[in-house]
Amino acid sequence: MLPSLITLLTDFGTADYFVGAMKGVILSLNAQAHIIDITHEIPPQDIRAGAFTLLAAYRDFPPQTIHVAVVDPGVGSRRRPILVASGEQFFVGPDNGLFSYIYEREVKCRVFHLTREKYFCHPVSATFHGRDVFAPVAGALSNGVEPAELGDEIIDYVRLDPLAPKTFEDGTIEASIIHVDRFGNCVTNLTREHLPERMIARRPRLIINGNEITAFRRFYAEKDSASGELFAIWGSAGFLEIAAFLESAAQMLGARRGQSFMISID
Amino acid sequence: MLPSLITLLTDFGTADYFVGAMKGVILSLNAQAHIIDITHEIPPQDIRAGAFTLLAAYRDFPPQTIHVAVVDPGVGSRRRPILVASGEQFFVGPDNGLFSYIYEREVKCRVFHLTREKYFCHPVSATFHGRDVFAPVAGALSNGVEPAELGDEIIDYVRLDPLAPKTFEDGTIEASIIHVDRFGNCVTNLTREHLPERMIARRPRLIINGNEITAFRRFYAEKDSASGELFAIWGSAGFLEIAAFLESAAQMLGARRGQSFMISID
Amino acid sequence: MLPSLITLLTDFGTADYFVGAMKGVILSLNAQAHIIDITHEIPPQDIRAGAFTLLAAYRDFPPQTIHVAVVDPGVGSRRRPILVASGEQFFVGPDNGLFSYIYEREVKCRVFHLTREKYFCHPVSATFHGRDVFAPVAGALSNGVEPAELGDEIIDYVRLDPLAPKTFEDGTIEASIIHVDRFGNCVTNLTREHLPERMIARRPRLIINGNEITAFRRFYAEKDSASGELFAIWGSAGFLEIAAFLESAAQMLGARRGQSFMISID
Repeated sequence: MLPSLITLLTDFGTADYFVGAMKGVILSLNAQAHIIDITHEIPPQDIRAGAFTLLAAYRDFPPQTIHVAVVDPGVGSRRRPILVASGEQFFVGPDNGLFSYIYEREVKCRVFHLTREKYFCHPVSATFHGRDVFAPVAGALSNGVEPAELGDEIIDYVRLDPLAPKTFEDGTIEASIIHVDRFGNCVTNLTREHLPERMIARRPRLIINGNEITAFRRFYAEKDSASGELFAIWGSAGFLEIAAFLESAAQMLGARRGQSFMISID
Repeated sequence: MLPSLITLLTDFGTADYFVGAMKGVILSLNAQAHIIDITHEIPPQDIRAGAFTLLAAYRDFPPQTIHVAVVDPGVGSRRRPILVASGEQFFVGPDNGLFSYIYEREVKCRVFHLTREKYFCHPVSATFHGRDVFAPVAGALSNGVEPAELGDEIIDYVRLDPLAPKTFEDGTIEASIIHVDRFGNCVTNLTREHLPERMIARRPRLIINGNEITAFRRFYAEKDSASGELFAIWGSAGFLEIAAFLESAAQMLGARRGQSFMISID
Repeated sequence: MLPSLITLLTDFGTADYFVGAMKGVILSLNAQAHIIDITHEIPPQDIRAGAFTLLAAYRDFPPQTIHVAVVDPGVGSRRRPILVASGEQFFVGPDNGLFSYIYEREVKCRVFHLTREKYFCHPVSATFHGRDVFAPVAGALSNGVEPAELGDEIIDYVRLDPLAPKTFEDGTIEASIIHVDRFGNCVTNLTREHLPERMIARRPRLIINGNEITAFRRFYAEKDSASGELFAIWGSAGFLEIAAFLESAAQMLGARRGQSFMISID
């Protein structure tokens, strides 16, 4: 069976013609393609934010899904267009680190430099490879073209710094906020691997911008708590989140994506 | 024929991975599912706003449509996940009043408490039942699973206060604004049943925040009116709306969703 | 083969029930319809903005695509609902100029006044023809109804002023900004026809709000330039754009859509 499910993740917003044009190109090549938007609201040019959101969403899609991701400040320059074949799924986009967290999670990634221009839309603009390179390559893949036919395999693809927090000798951890969601929940880079149950039992303190958070909860509405209480909770993407019931933890903390914070354990 | 049309209505926004993850789960269970977004811009945690928008949209969809609605401040707590079978369509989401206006309109609703965990995605997170409970249940329904197979029928499901306005003995009506749309039109809870033609002929006065509105129009651009004129008009969801041509009535009135106002008839 | 790809372009936003209702109507008429959103974020009532975005997107869609476009301040009044058949594609919406740039580009447009009410949804509201007129007509077209069956051909349809800039005798050009995109790039109405390579070789100066722009680039990240440099670049819709790498040219220039500016060539 051919892969016909294609997702889109971009920083294009939804007010312009960009997303429509990409869909038009894909459907011109494969009228049976099933196109799903993950999001188009990645902050403009923010590669790390795109990498996180792709990481949080991709595993819920079935095998053979083709993910097209375009956060591409270097469009038109010498940055390479690539295809990542992870064994189960495909990823198409620029070689600027956007797929870094896929490389971390999927051990058998093969990466191809997209050079076979006959699969592009011509003339290829210098400013919109989403439409002229990535969309038509996704269309070609969905029509059964093999990855190796699209370009040569490479191994020197770009990777961002790893997501993982740093642990110091005294057990202190330096973590960071990798995402702030619509509800103001602060997603951290801490997984259960870094903060297993036995460590939580020792009542770790999260210190962010002068605030100390010690409460751990299982779900948002766990207590009829006074509003304004901050707590930590395992979020749905597998990371520890800092949250507040019916309020924005990010606002309460003055926290922003990218900032680091400390976890102390006595 | 199996129901394969699935709509989504949430307060998740479109910037996060939430909606993409729900769609991935549904398509993993049923690659033929046809997923349509009603909206993801319900104000965070605003159950009444979600209930109104679902009411305004659901009847335009064909029989057998499965509507998944998630505005769910109590996610992870003891609030029940439910399925509503209205005879013609299905509704899946939390038992917190979100389907109240469906119960008002559809006389033969049967409500099922979703307890058969084998139809959920495991491990079930405590914070994202949209992905782990409601999406997979919609997928199962679209694959032909019967409502009664998903859980036991219940009758004590949660209902919000009825939508209808209050009428006093002297004929005065206390109505409320149940929605403000993108154009600033204020949708009220008045239907033609509460305000029939013979009452409109008697020139009712709507009094909102000190403004008196007496003009009734058939369409927005009815007159080449001076801007700034407020008028009442029957809106497309079947409710009386307060509007202004090319301007925001809500801004002009300082009106907000939820507020009440009076209608006097001499 | 029947045309089953239907795009939507509106100023309805995505927070209300409007878009969902239109999709429900289409899918009620044709369960096989494939509905794609171009955008719903056209500024409210801004016909020119809708006309531009439709122009920039439509050619990437395959033949037989049905484009439904609704930016419709005159809804309910005597403005006519129309269908445009361009030979390759269809366009459905109000006769208020929204399809002007299609008429400019597609030489063989035939325009039909939609009068056969049996193809509408009844009762037809006075405020939401997107749902009650345009969506069901698109559904009918996708089911194979012929344009001439939907209404009589007309020739006096509404056209906006042409997109083209004005050229003066001394070679100076008066151009305008026809769109500002999410990244702050200012799309102008200059095409390669107005500004061919031989003219660019003579180093034209673009003068906007007191700023003089002389740099022409092939792609955004062409140089490791100091931020803050403004430059001109051929954009992906075929028009010259004024841009800045990783910054908003519109903000830097204090420029807005609709404003004119001069191009001088010595």
